[in-house]
Amino acid sequence: MVPIFEKITIVGMGLIGSSIALATRRGELATSICGCDAGPDIGERVTKLALVDRFEVDPGRAVADADLVIMAVPVGAMADLSAKIVPYMKQGAILSDTGSTKRSVVRDVGPHVSDAIHWVPSHPLAGTEHSGPEAGMADLFDGRYWLVLPLDAPEEVVAKFESFVTGLGSVSERMDADYHDKVTALTSHLPHLIAYTIVSTAVDLETQLKNDVIRFSASGFRDFTRLASSDPVMWRDVFLKNDAAVLEMLQRFSEDLSYLQRAIRWQEGDKLEELFHRTREIRRSIIDAGQS
Amino acid sequence: MVPIFEKITIVGMGLIGSSIALATRRGELATSICGCDAGPDIGERVTKLALVDRFEVDPGRAVADADLVIMAVPVGAMADLSAKIVPYMKQGAILSDTGSTKRSVVRDVGPHVSDAIHWVPSHPLAGTEHSGPEAGMADLFDGRYWLVLPLDAPEEVVAKFESFVTGLGSVSERMDADYHDKVTALTSHLPHLIAYTIVSTAVDLETQLKNDVIRFSASGFRDFTRLASSDPVMWRDVFLKNDAAVLEMLQRFSEDLSYLQRAIRWQEGDKLEELFHRTREIRRSIIDAGQS
Repeated sequence: MVPIFEKITIVGMGLIGSSIALATRRGELATSICGCDAGPDIGERVTKLALVDRFEVDPGRAVADADLVIMAVPVGAMADLSAKIVPYMKQGAILSDTGSTKRSVVRDVGPHVSDAIHWVPSHPLAGTEHSGPEAGMADLFDGRYWLVLPLDAPEEVVAKFESFVTGLGSVSERMDADYHDKVTALTSHLPHLIAYTIVSTAVDLETQLKNDVIRFSASGFRDFTRLASSDPVMWRDVFLKNDAAVLEMLQRFSEDLSYLQRAIRWQEGDKLEELFHRTREIRRSIIDAGQS
Repeated sequence: MVPIFEKITIVGMGLIGSSIALATRRGELATSICGCDAGPDIGERVTKLALVDRFEVDPGRAVADADLVIMAVPVGAMADLSAKIVPYMKQGAILSDTGSTKRSVVRDVGPHVSDAIHWVPSHPLAGTEHSGPEAGMADLFDGRYWLVLPLDAPEEVVAKFESFVTGLGSVSERMDADYHDKVTALTSHLPHLIAYTIVSTAVDLETQLKNDVIRFSASGFRDFTRLASSDPVMWRDVFLKNDAAVLEMLQRFSEDLSYLQRAIRWQEGDKLEELFHRTREIRRSIIDAGQS
């Protein structure tokens, strides 16, 4: 099998970047993998884990000879990073990213992209609550969707990038930025916001009650704490960058919550039961869609 | 090993009742297990699964010779059921239940309890999103807390019941009704309410967006759909019966959500990040407590 790319560079060696490195090697998708991260001691940890063939602290040096550059950093850092690396990228190279918000990345990175390179934003729908190079997993993307924004890149470039993400184990799907941000606002961003909220409600309880909430955390709360332990900086940026779609979905959510709140207060069991039957159907659809 | 009870009767052969039957047999905790359920075709399914030694449709007949009777029905059905069975229970028998709310059960069942029997309400902190006799699992309670309310039962009776739930695999813990309802309002009831809400928000989206939310449901939303597919009648009753504690926790939650909403609207990243760091600590505490 011929590797899809000669050299690839991953900037940001957290959970996603490290997993891309491991999955690239597993799939023999590139001849050489360069990792880049300016975080303190990240280079040491990446080297110790042998995640990449070469490690660079300086992003300009890291991308200089790469055929594919993937920015796997918090979405708030995309603008600065792209401004730094694009001038060093070689003619015809592909630039992509793994950011969880896409309107902001298109808006923030777009002005820094030159005609010399191809710009194909993307977003793998995969992750865990763990962070850092040690959290990387070669099979993180297996069977998961990887959303790709073609923008105005040539079809053969988009197809090449798609064959790369398919090689990582994922299922490629094209989407535009607006629609992406709306879908992920509900599937991922709002659930995380709510999980952060309910866990923060627990944080503020008086000590004994808080300790017993932790001790007796049944499946509901425990699931939420997993979401609410995800990387704070990454998620801060997601909410700041996808603010419009998140606030819109939050408004809908709040209305629906008020409806249930009122039904509880007025002891309207029929309304609760009817709604709980309808939500059960969605679970069945997800199981049927093979996403459970 | 001598069985703890000669005969036990489980009324309500859903997920919890069936699991108690299977775990009782696994632990050889009773000589004979009687199951009772008036639901259409439940008897047939329970018999086919060979979950019990004897099945009765009529609750009076089911409990007549039992040394321990466990009511494993939705909390809204406890009052009627206890009124029906207590007159048929034998002298000195123990009556318990597995209801998720305890103030309401104490209030609803209490008036029907006679001096001839011992009344020890309880609540196993275990479950799945599945329902019905087929959902029963012998190991459902392994390592999970089982909260026991001694009320005014003699110590040796409470201890005997505790040795039974320990035999089922669980960890027994005594608690009073008020505190129970407060803790579970946050650990279980509010998370389920919120999960039902966010999934219902998705239900109301226009068709294409809804279909794509289902298709691209990332970990956040997918986790919520699992909670939101739990038994509708059971959960309707939980919210109606623990309304005060749920509404109080919901009020706190709504305030905390408004705080985050405002921080997003005003782009106050420092507030978001600070809070996300604090919620991460709670996850560590749960992992340290061995409940993850």
